[in-house]
Amino acid sequence: MPFEDIRALIREMPGPDAAAAAAARDRDAQLTKPPGALGRLENIAEWMAAWQGRHPPKVNRPVTAVFAGNHGVVAQGVAAFPQDVTKQMVANFQSGGAAVNQICKTFDIGLKVFELALEMPTRDITIAAALDEVECAATIAYGMEAITGGCDLLCLGEMGIGNTTIAAAIAHALYGGKAADWAGPGTGLDAKGVANKAAVVERAIAFHKAHLDDPLEVLRRVGGRELAAMAGAILAARLERVPVLIDGYVATAAAAVLHAMDSTALDHCIAAHRSAEPAHGALLERLALDPLLDLGMRLGEGSGAALAAAVIKAAVNTHAGMATFAEAGVSGKA
Amino acid sequence: MPFEDIRALIREMPGPDAAAAAAARDRDAQLTKPPGALGRLENIAEWMAAWQGRHPPKVNRPVTAVFAGNHGVVAQGVAAFPQDVTKQMVANFQSGGAAVNQICKTFDIGLKVFELALEMPTRDITIAAALDEVECAATIAYGMEAITGGCDLLCLGEMGIGNTTIAAAIAHALYGGKAADWAGPGTGLDAKGVANKAAVVERAIAFHKAHLDDPLEVLRRVGGRELAAMAGAILAARLERVPVLIDGYVATAAAAVLHAMDSTALDHCIAAHRSAEPAHGALLERLALDPLLDLGMRLGEGSGAALAAAVIKAAVNTHAGMATFAEAGVSGKA
Repeated sequence: MPFEDIRALIREMPGPDAAAAAAARDRDAQLTKPPGALGRLENIAEWMAAWQGRHPPKVNRPVTAVFAGNHGVVAQGVAAFPQDVTKQMVANFQSGGAAVNQICKTFDIGLKVFELALEMPTRDITIAAALDEVECAATIAYGMEAITGGCDLLCLGEMGIGNTTIAAAIAHALYGGKAADWAGPGTGLDAKGVANKAAVVERAIAFHKAHLDDPLEVLRRVGGRELAAMAGAILAARLERVPVLIDGYVATAAAAVLHAMDSTALDHCIAAHRSAEPAHGALLERLALDPLLDLGMRLGEGSGAALAAAVIKAAVNTHAGMATFAEAGVSGKA
Repeated sequence: MPFEDIRALIREMPGPDAAAAAAARDRDAQLTKPPGALGRLENIAEWMAAWQGRHPPKVNRPVTAVFAGNHGVVAQGVAAFPQDVTKQMVANFQSGGAAVNQICKTFDIGLKVFELALEMPTRDITIAAALDEVECAATIAYGMEAITGGCDLLCLGEMGIGNTTIAAAIAHALYGGKAADWAGPGTGLDAKGVANKAAVVERAIAFHKAHLDDPLEVLRRVGGRELAAMAGAILAARLERVPVLIDGYVATAAAAVLHAMDSTALDHCIAAHRSAEPAHGALLERLALDPLLDLGMRLGEGSGAALAAAVIKAAVNTHAGMATFAEAGVSGKA
């Protein structure tokens, strides 16, 4: 029962470090600014302390992990780009030419690319389960590699032609509604393409409907390798006290699987941004995640997460580096 | 007539460089991403090209300029902190202990601090004009120093106990409504303090009401030195093709003076963020500025502008550094 190992890890998840969080609040109150004036940066510093389990929190080794997978469901005509693009973009990441490379370089963020059996797409979810249990559990476990070698902030992204269809299927399986609520243009479908995508998602969910009560079964049946790997990465990060920035719609759908298993499973995660993919906002609401940025991005590949890491860096550096009222000789409130 | 020199400069403002903008659009269409997938980052790259007048646009020498001034209106009990804090915070900027220092350090942004006659506060706007015309024009001219020495992106901020009252007075003078629409808690007034602040703004505008048709008269009568200097910095940046990030409520009020003189005067500016100061959103709407970030910050001192500079850096680096479809051998749409 490979999924039992995953369930056991979920039960072992540590909570926030209350002492580190209290130390952050205490220091924040002494810094040379009106209380609350740094807004969300203050919350982030406390949250980083709580989830790194140390004060002050630090971002010295941020890493963006990009997981790439292919999907049998592209046979249903759900993608605007051909499947070869997944592999081509992996090569682009490796040679430094993609958007996420430039953003990581701008902010000194490491980049790891994980290629997940691209020559062997998952099965078409309209007629079969995407993965068997052994494959799915092994891919979750493989995703845990994202944090090996040491990192103190994980930016999580993906690449996979067809994977916004997979994200829509997961969201529809977990949250119901209509398939059309969760299907959007992805990389650039027109209205007819979006309608077809919604119909494909509807057929997939109808096919698997007797087996969707268990979130791991949802992931196995209508998910994909990069989504399973991202779920594993989020879980491993929790176990090793690494805060996580979740990128866009697909990464959030992967995170939703964990949230459906345990509603505290994403407490160490921040939604990096609100994607322009229309259903992302609704998905974030189900997860009670308030996105940090809202810049109309919808690229995936961890680009939004890497950009949001700049805000996290600013938050922890501000918290650690500012002078206190006493140190700077600044008067308090009149 | 010292203001005539300012009016002459406004008439000389260059427009966007259409060729550089077209080159940016052309390159953007070839980069390895679906069209539009980088959202606002794409618009920023084009906007930077247009206003720097070169392609590709670059951010190699970003500078944050912080202008500090003191205000006679604090005699009316409008500030939560004592006036000495302006000077103490300038010392804090100079010794590297303020929030803006840490943010600038995080993103390799230079920091210049301009101290504007702190020992000689402007006159109390409820009973006199803050500045005479010579003082006001000289301070606008002094603000133009912000961009000397060369910079390719200007982040504009301020420090000045009492200056959200000044910002409210300018907004009320330019846009009408009720004084209470424009007066907020600033660094931390309670409800009673905010009500007093609104009453002070109302008295100031009543006192000057016969002379508020000319935006430069608004700046002189109910403004302040750091606001005049910021207006000068924005104007100088336009003339020298340096794009500008406007920080919070006070910096936006300074910008509004230029906008009231010429509705194109802020086309080379981006609003860095929406401040938690309640009236900031309404002020941004009057200026048709869509803020880049919305993180509940309300510190001033250029902190939001410096943080937003990270997004601008990511935008220009992504635009310049990404591979094209042809270079990377990535297939186009199916």
